[in-house]
Amino acid sequence: MKTKAKAFAPATIANVSCGFDVFGLAIDAPGDEVEISLNDSGSVRMKAIFGDEGRLPMDASQNTAGVAVIEFLKSIGKNSGAQITLHKKLPLGSGMGSSAASAVAAVVAINHLFDEPLSREQLLPFAMEAERIACGSAHADNVAPSLFGGLTLIRTNNPLDVISIPTPDDLTCVLVHPHIEVKTRDARQVLKQTIPLKDGITQWANTAALVAGMMKQDYALIGRSLVDVVVEPMRALLIPGFDRIKSKAITSGALGCGISGSGPTIFCLCEGMANANRAGKSIQEEFETMNLRSEIFISHVNKKGAYIID
Amino acid sequence: MKTKAKAFAPATIANVSCGFDVFGLAIDAPGDEVEISLNDSGSVRMKAIFGDEGRLPMDASQNTAGVAVIEFLKSIGKNSGAQITLHKKLPLGSGMGSSAASAVAAVVAINHLFDEPLSREQLLPFAMEAERIACGSAHADNVAPSLFGGLTLIRTNNPLDVISIPTPDDLTCVLVHPHIEVKTRDARQVLKQTIPLKDGITQWANTAALVAGMMKQDYALIGRSLVDVVVEPMRALLIPGFDRIKSKAITSGALGCGISGSGPTIFCLCEGMANANRAGKSIQEEFETMNLRSEIFISHVNKKGAYIID
Repeated sequence: MKTKAKAFAPATIANVSCGFDVFGLAIDAPGDEVEISLNDSGSVRMKAIFGDEGRLPMDASQNTAGVAVIEFLKSIGKNSGAQITLHKKLPLGSGMGSSAASAVAAVVAINHLFDEPLSREQLLPFAMEAERIACGSAHADNVAPSLFGGLTLIRTNNPLDVISIPTPDDLTCVLVHPHIEVKTRDARQVLKQTIPLKDGITQWANTAALVAGMMKQDYALIGRSLVDVVVEPMRALLIPGFDRIKSKAITSGALGCGISGSGPTIFCLCEGMANANRAGKSIQEEFETMNLRSEIFISHVNKKGAYIID
Repeated sequence: MKTKAKAFAPATIANVSCGFDVFGLAIDAPGDEVEISLNDSGSVRMKAIFGDEGRLPMDASQNTAGVAVIEFLKSIGKNSGAQITLHKKLPLGSGMGSSAASAVAAVVAINHLFDEPLSREQLLPFAMEAERIACGSAHADNVAPSLFGGLTLIRTNNPLDVISIPTPDDLTCVLVHPHIEVKTRDARQVLKQTIPLKDGITQWANTAALVAGMMKQDYALIGRSLVDVVVEPMRALLIPGFDRIKSKAITSGALGCGISGSGPTIFCLCEGMANANRAGKSIQEEFETMNLRSEIFISHVNKKGAYIID
């Protein structure tokens, strides 16, 4: 039996504008890496965390990677101990699915160590349980795409119904992460608990249209469908200059532009790398005019999800 | 130039459960037939209406077929007169898109008489304008599928953005029309103008999933997506025994079951004719136990929309 394994799990764009709480999209890079070694201590420990500037909990029961491993071991009835090393490559509180990527890399690594007793579908609940520690609820909109890859639709959480939506090959993702932080809990607090029926209609027309656009490989339709009248108007208030940034990105070549997850990272979907580069730069420039530093990540859609690395 | 033409336009299932105001689905039969003859009177007249028991207006400006023709002639700048004969094959106030079918058959017939100067897309606004007479708003969720065929998604009304969604070949539709009448205006009045955010999320997950199910030809997913938590709970109150009818239909072979448009007609989607027959019968039997007579219509999806008949 293997005693050591390392896995990579990608960043994800939750919501994808119109699909609040239901869509998530995995990108090729960046992502978190989790290394696990088994021992006979009978307990799960965080051995080291790199790249978090000391901000993540070293208590495994409070760390999403730790919780995912604890839940996995409980489920397969193993009393093994495990040491977890987390290489945090995703910025915290960025809206890029950072907590999800750590949990997903952890379950993929631990499953590999036990010779893959569980399918990806079966691993999902452990990663969701880990999300509860980070976000207060066991939601799947980041963990599902990070685990399965591609664009995922969570039709329901209970029972869990995850649907993979094919995406066109030349669809390119831009993430621009400004150096400000928005806590998921805060981002959820700005939401209203009721919405006008007419806004609901707009939203469910657009989620349906986005799926059609993806499956028909119709880039223009994808762009037209990246509209969010429910959540973005609230969350945009937490991101300086959002409206200007968005319109600049679109005139610079993005099909559409929105807030990645709960923000503050901005995402764009583009047809091809050239458009993605232009859109990314335009957003970074807007942040610069406000004296905000930012990083650009440009990537194709990750179609295979998390994977084992040597 | 032709001086006489006759067109058929099919019945339609608006909403298709989850997609209130955005989805519409055309069926092969039944449908309305409209016969138009041109003359030089300079005015549009209803010559005769069959099958409406005298309930539809003979004033062309108040009849959906008449309005559609008037709007068409205005648009192409013709001063011709026209006489319209409407063969009403769809029950009125049934939720089967009766007013839309008359308008669509009329625009297809008049366009044919002028040697098709306008495309189907260009005809749509005239039929929508006719819907305003019948329903109080120029909505497209019945006229678009009746005109184009298949499953249509109205992403927005303004600007009009109609998307055709492919459907699996063996998808079979059941409509059961009980002999009670629900006015569209009344059916709209029971709706609340705000909805809980969580119901919105359920709804936009299901519209996205229904498109995925259709395009993947995944019948089980189509069935799981036929869920409406927003409108059906209100409108079901207008239809006696709705909950029992629905659960009977599903145990009898329907993938899903809901209210067609604003009701009272019940629709089911099924895989294949045998399931459709069983589901239709189960619904009719439930209405019978309440001493309500009903008709069953079973049909494949109409994939070509309205057409000229000899």
